[in-house]
Order: sequence, then structure tokens, then C-alpha cells
Amino acid sequence: MAVLFLSTPERGAVFREVFARDLPDMPFHVGQAPDPHAVRYLVAWTAPEGLARDYPNLRLIFSVGAGVDQFDLTALPQGVGVVRMLEPGIARQMREYATMATLAMHRDLPAYLDQQRRGEWLPRMNVDAADRRVGVMGLGNLGQAVLESLRPFGFDLAGWSRSPRRIEGVACHTDLDAFLARTDILLCLLPLTAETEGMLNAALFDKLPMGARLVHLGRGRQLDADALRQALDSGRIAQAMLDVTEPEPLPAGHWLWRHPRVILTPHVASQTVAHEGALHVLAGIRADLRGQRPEGLVDRARGY
Amino acid sequence: MAVLFLSTPERGAVFREVFARDLPDMPFHVGQAPDPHAVRYLVAWTAPEGLARDYPNLRLIFSVGAGVDQFDLTALPQGVGVVRMLEPGIARQMREYATMATLAMHRDLPAYLDQQRRGEWLPRMNVDAADRRVGVMGLGNLGQAVLESLRPFGFDLAGWSRSPRRIEGVACHTDLDAFLARTDILLCLLPLTAETEGMLNAALFDKLPMGARLVHLGRGRQLDADALRQALDSGRIAQAMLDVTEPEPLPAGHWLWRHPRVILTPHVASQTVAHEGALHVLAGIRADLRGQRPEGLVDRARGY
Repeated sequence: MAVLFLSTPERGAVFREVFARDLPDMPFHVGQAPDPHAVRYLVAWTAPEGLARDYPNLRLIFSVGAGVDQFDLTALPQGVGVVRMLEPGIARQMREYATMATLAMHRDLPAYLDQQRRGEWLPRMNVDAADRRVGVMGLGNLGQAVLESLRPFGFDLAGWSRSPRRIEGVACHTDLDAFLARTDILLCLLPLTAETEGMLNAALFDKLPMGARLVHLGRGRQLDADALRQALDSGRIAQAMLDVTEPEPLPAGHWLWRHPRVILTPHVASQTVAHEGALHVLAGIRADLRGQRPEGLVDRARGY
Repeated sequence: MAVLFLSTPERGAVFREVFARDLPDMPFHVGQAPDPHAVRYLVAWTAPEGLARDYPNLRLIFSVGAGVDQFDLTALPQGVGVVRMLEPGIARQMREYATMATLAMHRDLPAYLDQQRRGEWLPRMNVDAADRRVGVMGLGNLGQAVLESLRPFGFDLAGWSRSPRRIEGVACHTDLDAFLARTDILLCLLPLTAETEGMLNAALFDKLPMGARLVHLGRGRQLDADALRQALDSGRIAQAMLDVTEPEPLPAGHWLWRHPRVILTPHVASQTVAHEGALHVLAGIRADLRGQRPEGLVDRARGY
């Protein structure tokens, strides 16, 4: 029985240290395993080719990053479970980025950056946070952490998810149209699935109030970039802050790099903190060894 | 006995309504008073010329904005008190802006904006908030509100003020050198006084760790802009976000508009919310009529 780690050597060194200390009897290999048949747990960002053939005794794949959309869940062997990365550093960093981005949209930062480029001193009237309706799509672990972080500012908060939720101080919707109609600043924190791919499109934008703002923290393939361009042109969307694009890296000449009302960052909202990630994987393996369900085990039919 | 209001007509209309409702027996004039000798309370951003001559019975001047540095406190008649604007909207807005700016410094936003201008996709490693030492200069009403807003993110927090303070979860310093030596992100929320004018200078910057970041929310005259430029060039200061400049508006050709590691906004961090401002002034007048000290009365010797 062994663990095979297939991410960067820097992270691998951190994982190796945690495993040597806390689970010393479990062989831990970085890069390749001397006996592939012994590999029961895989820690990786993507599934290696020939997975079923090379690792016939594999039980669990642990994703090293947030999200599991990089795995083709329909192609993985039936008996293999996929576990999401749930270390707390991801949520902490997402809270930081989402709060910064929401405040940047609330306080017109893209407009001020554009004025700065032109050397133009033009104060605008601030809007009270209580008059700004913020809406979060996706009410899992990350969406809830973000809403908690936004609460002290006094925003009018709502959330949307497919299944009903109850979150204190947040109007939780399952009706997407009603949610969009009341949302001035829309944050997307949805996982990428067949249902959410291309979801941020013209039809969705048209249901927002004129002058709405978008913060996209999900996956690039959820956003129809042409529809965003048209929504920016028509004024439906006034400003946007995007951390994900399709493809990544975004090609050098792409219009998104240069739009005066778009702030773009290179997929940095959340990064796995190696030490905490190792503890999450370790806890998952221990649960599996006890015959329990590891935290973060993905429902392969739902895709998250 | 009357109130004279000398700020914008829009604000004046809001103040008039509040006074008509809550203090109907007090004459309230916008722009000019029919009988200047009756003016006991003045609401204004600056002191009108000939103040002592025209309004001999003046008791209190209420500032319509945060700060009283626009008044020449040494030139005002001895018997006239100056009252700072303490309405809660100012602190709410300052919390929003300071949190946005601190997170922007923490998450390298100026560097990402610069990469965006160049069409360059280059993720950097995020730093844990617990490893980021944030320091707030000025621990009055606004400084404390900002520290409270930063606390949930897990930053290592400190504050500096001339007089000793105790704030839960914040290392409060009166020794400026020790405070600066441990500060990675420096926020200035100091009032402008003879002591703080020009305080953000080369000697101060040299006491910060290399690669520190600056958020300036005080007054433009506290910052030696040439020293900031040198500190940016030497790498002492890696990034800055400024909401105040000297002069304001900043002239069109000024280097600050174009520095790739500076974000500049046109003095918009906090604006007085007219309705709440009117309630603050009203409460101050009522206190004075009862022979009590209005909240926000400035110590004219200290200057704040």
C-alpha cells in the first residue's frame, strides 16, 4: 500500500514531511512509484494517462487544487473515488480575494484606474453598502466563507444554489431569475460542471439590473466572453473583475487584457497551502483506512 | 439664535429637512443669514473670511467633512469651538476603502494591473495573511474602525499613536521606530497637524522593511512625494495606494498618475453621508444648548 504524489517537487517535499511524521508506515513516493501495483492513493492535479492499467489497485485520487473539473470523471475507473482539496487556506484566500474584488466593484475601482491612466481627478459619489445588493452563485464551502467575509460591511446579501440552503443574514434563492433581478454585484463561485459550463452568458446578463458588476472566481469555461463584451458595451455590466479565463493563460492579444472596465488577474484567487493540503489528504487517507468516507469525496454523477 | 450652513445646496437641503423636523424652533439658513449677529452655529468646510467681524456671536463651527486641518485653528476667535464630523458613514466608508486597499497591497494588485497592461499572465505565490504585518498610524475613531475590519482576515495587526492605547488583538505602539520595523503594510490615518505634516518622508520609509507597502488615507501634505518616488525606485516600498495628494486635484502631468506600482484615487475613501452628518451636527447643537460639550469638539492646541 503506498501514496504517489504527482504535483510540483516543492509541494511534494512538504507532503513527504507531513506523511513521514504523521503516517510513517505508509510509503510515500514523489514523481513515480517503484511498484505501481502498490499505489492505493494518488495526489495529483490531473489524472495520468493509462491510470486504470498502471495503478490497478488505486482507491482514491486527491486533487491538489480547488476544483475537480480537470478530471474527466466519466473516464475514470468506476471504483476510484475523487476527493476535492478542502484545506482551509483555499477558503481564507478566496475570502480575501472576493472581499477585495467586491469592494473594488462597490467603490468603482476600475473607473478610478481608468481615470488614473488619463490623469483625470474626478471623485464620484460613494454608494452606501446597504444600498448595494451583492449576490453569490454557489453556496458551498467557498461561497459561504465569502458571504461571511462580506457581512460586516453591511451589504444586502443573497445567494443562489440549485439545492435550497439556509444561511443567516443571506437571502438564499433557488430561483435564478429572481436572484439575478436583485443583484448589483454578482460573484460566481460555482464549480465547473456540464450545467455551469457557459452559464454566464447573454441570457443571464440580461436578467441583471443595468450597470451590474461581475466578479468571476469560478472557471473560465463558465463565461461566454463575447457576451461579457456585449454586456460591457451596452452598459448592462458596468465593471468586471475576473480571475479565470478560457484558455489560461489568456493569449496576449485578447481584448480582455485591455478593456478599461475589466480587472484581470491570472488565476491567483486561491492557491493550496501545501502544509494544510497535506493534512487534508492525510485525514482523507486515514478515514479511508478506517472504512469511512473521506471529507471532500466527490459525487461523480453531480460532478462536485 | 440661528444656524448658518455654508456647504453645497444638495447637502444643505438634507440638513434643512432634518433641522425642520427635529429642531423646528432653530432658524436654519443655507448660503447666507438675514441677521449675521444671530448666527451662533456655523456648518462649513472652511471658515469664511471676516468670520470674527461678521458673526460676533458665533459659538461653534461644525466641519462638514472628516478632518479639521482646512481651518486655521490659530486664527479663529478664541471663544469659537471647532467640531469634527463624526457621523458613522465616514467610518463605514473608510473601513471599506482601507480593507480594499490593504487586501490590494497584500494580494499584489498593482503588480497584476501592471501585468494586465502588458498582457502578461504570471501568477505569484500568495502570502498567508498571518505572515503579513499590517500597521495603522492613527488610532482614533477611524483607525480603530479600520483595524476591526481587518481583524477577520488574520493579519498580524499593530497600531501607532502618540498617546498609549489598548485595542484587543492589536499590538499598540508609541515607539514609532519599533512600529515601523515590524510593518509590511503601512496605513496612514493620521489627522493633519504641525507634527504630522511631512511625516511620511525618507527617514520614515527607511525604517520600514524592504518591500513594504503604503496605503495613504490621511492628508496629502503628510507625504513627501519625492521621498516616496525614491523609496519606490530603491524597492524600499514595493507598492502604494494613495487617496490623498498635494495638491488636490493632482496636476495632470504628475508622475504619481503614471507610476506602475501606484494606485491613485481622487480623495474618495470617505464622504460625509448628509443625513447622518445632519444628525451629528444637531446632536452637537443640542449638547451646547444644554451647556454640554459636543461630541467631536477639537482640542485647538493639539489640532484634532
